[in-house]
Amino acid sequence: MAESHLNRQASSISYTYDNLTGWRRLRPLRLFRGMYHDVRRRLPYYWSDIRDALTYRTIASTIRMYFVNILPAIAYTLDMYRRTGEFYGINEALFSSALAAMIFSLLGAQPLTIVGITGLISLFNYTIYDIVIQYRPAIYPNFMCWTAIWAAVFHWIVAVCNLCDYMRYVTDFSSESFGAYVGIIYCIKGVEELVNEFTEHGSTAGFMSCMIAILYFLTIYSLEMLGSSTICRPWFRGLLADYAYVIGTIFWVGFSHIPGNLKSTQISFVPTSRAFYPTQPRGWLIHFWELDMKWVFAALPFGFLVMLLFYYDHNVSSLTAQARQFPLKKPAGFHWDFFLLGCTTFLAGMTGIPMPNGLVPQAPVHTDSLTIYETELCLVGTEEGEGVELRRPIVKATAVVEQRVSHFLMGLAIIGTMTGPLLIVLHTMPAAVFAGVFFIVGWGSIESNGMLQKTIFLLRENRFIQRDEPLLRVKRRKILLYISCQAIGVAACVAISQTIAAIGFPILIIALIPFRVWTIPKWFSQEELDILDDLTANNTAVLASLGGPPRFPNAKEQHYGLERSYSEHRRGSYRQRAGSIHR
Amino acid sequence: MAESHLNRQASSISYTYDNLTGWRRLRPLRLFRGMYHDVRRRLPYYWSDIRDALTYRTIASTIRMYFVNILPAIAYTLDMYRRTGEFYGINEALFSSALAAMIFSLLGAQPLTIVGITGLISLFNYTIYDIVIQYRPAIYPNFMCWTAIWAAVFHWIVAVCNLCDYMRYVTDFSSESFGAYVGIIYCIKGVEELVNEFTEHGSTAGFMSCMIAILYFLTIYSLEMLGSSTICRPWFRGLLADYAYVIGTIFWVGFSHIPGNLKSTQISFVPTSRAFYPTQPRGWLIHFWELDMKWVFAALPFGFLVMLLFYYDHNVSSLTAQARQFPLKKPAGFHWDFFLLGCTTFLAGMTGIPMPNGLVPQAPVHTDSLTIYETELCLVGTEEGEGVELRRPIVKATAVVEQRVSHFLMGLAIIGTMTGPLLIVLHTMPAAVFAGVFFIVGWGSIESNGMLQKTIFLLRENRFIQRDEPLLRVKRRKILLYISCQAIGVAACVAISQTIAAIGFPILIIALIPFRVWTIPKWFSQEELDILDDLTANNTAVLASLGGPPRFPNAKEQHYGLERSYSEHRRGSYRQRAGSIHR
Repeated sequence: MAESHLNRQASSISYTYDNLTGWRRLRPLRLFRGMYHDVRRRLPYYWSDIRDALTYRTIASTIRMYFVNILPAIAYTLDMYRRTGEFYGINEALFSSALAAMIFSLLGAQPLTIVGITGLISLFNYTIYDIVIQYRPAIYPNFMCWTAIWAAVFHWIVAVCNLCDYMRYVTDFSSESFGAYVGIIYCIKGVEELVNEFTEHGSTAGFMSCMIAILYFLTIYSLEMLGSSTICRPWFRGLLADYAYVIGTIFWVGFSHIPGNLKSTQISFVPTSRAFYPTQPRGWLIHFWELDMKWVFAALPFGFLVMLLFYYDHNVSSLTAQARQFPLKKPAGFHWDFFLLGCTTFLAGMTGIPMPNGLVPQAPVHTDSLTIYETELCLVGTEEGEGVELRRPIVKATAVVEQRVSHFLMGLAIIGTMTGPLLIVLHTMPAAVFAGVFFIVGWGSIESNGMLQKTIFLLRENRFIQRDEPLLRVKRRKILLYISCQAIGVAACVAISQTIAAIGFPILIIALIPFRVWTIPKWFSQEELDILDDLTANNTAVLASLGGPPRFPNAKEQHYGLERSYSEHRRGSYRQRAGSIHR
Repeated sequence: MAESHLNRQASSISYTYDNLTGWRRLRPLRLFRGMYHDVRRRLPYYWSDIRDALTYRTIASTIRMYFVNILPAIAYTLDMYRRTGEFYGINEALFSSALAAMIFSLLGAQPLTIVGITGLISLFNYTIYDIVIQYRPAIYPNFMCWTAIWAAVFHWIVAVCNLCDYMRYVTDFSSESFGAYVGIIYCIKGVEELVNEFTEHGSTAGFMSCMIAILYFLTIYSLEMLGSSTICRPWFRGLLADYAYVIGTIFWVGFSHIPGNLKSTQISFVPTSRAFYPTQPRGWLIHFWELDMKWVFAALPFGFLVMLLFYYDHNVSSLTAQARQFPLKKPAGFHWDFFLLGCTTFLAGMTGIPMPNGLVPQAPVHTDSLTIYETELCLVGTEEGEGVELRRPIVKATAVVEQRVSHFLMGLAIIGTMTGPLLIVLHTMPAAVFAGVFFIVGWGSIESNGMLQKTIFLLRENRFIQRDEPLLRVKRRKILLYISCQAIGVAACVAISQTIAAIGFPILIIALIPFRVWTIPKWFSQEELDILDDLTANNTAVLASLGGPPRFPNAKEQHYGLERSYSEHRRGSYRQRAGSIHR
């Protein structure tokens, strides 16, 4: 078959630095090597990326991703709109999402990675606004444009110099911390959205919004719980899991328009403006040449921080979109995609739209929506006698419809949303629903987080824990130390996000990687880390693009992820709820 | 030991009609026989009822029951107050609860059965109000008094003629239906309470009340879920289970008084009036002699219906308070207690307070709060190899602190609440919290209901059901037929409750008993009924007071409750959440 031939070909031209000597070992000197291999490895699959898309899953995936991508994007834009002097509005957000979807679905090496507007770029944009208005508010658009230009330059340098390779050192230690941080920020944003209702529209709107947000959260949460239960037929559960957001959003948007007390309450809706025009009275091209030279260079460190943020955020979302639990066959391409991200960053700067990048909580949802799950029956014989074997459902991911059409169609749908009639539909959506979106995505990221899982393990009564649970082999105080290290990182990031120093948080997050590589092994034995930690990049197809598996200093034989593989053995792989980073 | 001597003595003077002949077999001719045996059986335990109370459980039980009794009582009174022209207020409700607690804790044969104000008597009172005001509104107090007098007379007749014996024919078929009906009525009341906020105090109060009610529900629900999990130490879980209502109520009452948007919103609070005085300007004695003779006799059928309601409601709550899962040692006394209930009904009528009776959803909570649970570890060896046996928590009820002191102390606490200072505290409680109480108690009754459990069984994917599940031996359409019969009964009761014919619903509920005895066996085989149904009265100590186990017509050997005993074998007994009737 052609595919197996391609597989062999891909593995023969392996991208590695392992057996090289002299200057050839130095990544920054081997310009374009990663990008070249990425394209060479991935290009032969391009036609199959279109051909493989002819299944129902592509449609389900397109609809689900449209909601999961656009709802948080709009949610963040509501926040960003208020806090950047109404510079970034809905049109900018939709344009940015559409641009990213078009470029990455057509040209990306990893079309599974959904790119769009994240909470962190919103945080970045309004923090820079807070800084700039202290000097000259008028230069904000140009300053953001130069920030993007510098960021794009740094992106291209990173891509060309093969620096994405270091992403292979990312383990669950830092990516769980990042997940918890993102989840907490989401929940804080949800509360801020509700507080805004109180201050802008008064108590009635505030309380009604609280009610809608809570009930929206409960609706989606219950539908997704039902979708992953053993109630009803598998096809029906599948429908619930695929369309939970669609059902919940349509219902609660409709609810807010029921005539009577609900309709007559003045709550806030998505603010829209003239279709295809920027929110502010300006052209789509930012006049970047009008900025003073001193401000151009003042933008340089901001650009570097944006690159740092995207380096971690975008690549981690690519990693989780291609995580081990998905049986992926097509190879990854981190260097090429990071180069493309530089291009979209550049274009975003030029047009004055928020810079898109990989969506951390939502990235694995796309792959999940394309995965064919089968709930298998696992019979565990017991010693209680005949006919009383235990029946346990094990969810198996049997295949993934790896293609780029769903990503492309989702982009088309976003472009459709930019037109006048659909903007009117968008305007009917109350801000309260978006507060609910924040809660459900944020809580999903916290609930499934390894930090919380380990905390629950510590809290559980020892006698009810299965004896073959790997965590039992680690001392309790060591587990506590491990999650404390993570928690301190999270707390530091959350704290800094609430100040004007918020733009510095990527440094904190990135610092967790060398901390894990050099400091953590001094406090934990290799056996303990094998259980507590796991490589975030652990798919062979993924590691091929990152120069092979990582080698940690002083580490002998490594068997990472014992805890995760134990859990998978017992319960099967988890369906990916929007927002849950791991499992 | 004295106790075992008493046990032997109790069994030797067994109350039965089985081996008697001629007129001696006819219950109504053997006046006072049941009451005599009840007292003779129970009286020797009186001293131990006080002596046994010297444990911590008595304190925990007193506090828990105070909240579980008084919160729904006040909740119903809010409803009754509005719908009876403000005749029944908080003072009447507290007086009635205190009176019942004093009489039944001091004189009752079954001090575990908590007696108080139920939703059904509230429904009765306002339906009679709706009927009476069509003729002469002024006679309502006197008419209610005569209704109570007639009801009391019927109570005494039933008790003296040993008619409570027929309660032994009550099976889960009718008591589950009743539980579902009560649960639905509770939830409807909760919604009505919130709707009232909208109409009386406007949208802001309405939405804030909705928010508080939902969050109150979620708080109690989560605390009780946590209390029955394997998280944390057993003593801590015990605290959560004991004080979930206390924690939740104090928190959300405090929440509603936080200065700012919450405090400034005009929501409604518990309406209180001068301590120890009736709500209306009247004396505590109803001038019943001032009623026209035609109205006196018009009250007779209403009194009969009250008796029918209490016959079912009070006795079922005694049955569930002494259900099989509780390892009770002291004998029951249905006839004596029903006689006492006639007395309280009479006193309630004379003083113009709501007639108290056994609280169906809360009755088993009292016994539960007195039960010493131990979560045991059940090891199930598997064929997977060594060290991987399954560890399952099994909750065992090891003993019940059977005494009458907690009931008495709870009564004292209610009398304390009637004083001025505590009435002021009561006045700080928003009505929204009571809507939450309705939801949590109502949902508890629905969630644990056998009807819902069987529906979930039918919906579950067959291959994940354990093979030894008894329900698998019944044809699916038979299960469907069974729950349909129950559902029709529930639907009829709920429907009639919304009309002026509401007072007729006890007839419907009682009719389910003969329907179960004569019609159901024609549609189901004995084997099917053994699995689907279970005796509600199944404790030997209970059946002793009802003249021994029931004998259904045409039934051979009976093994009721296979499904329940299967579930208990696998999972242990459930802790009784407020509102869950069965398990």
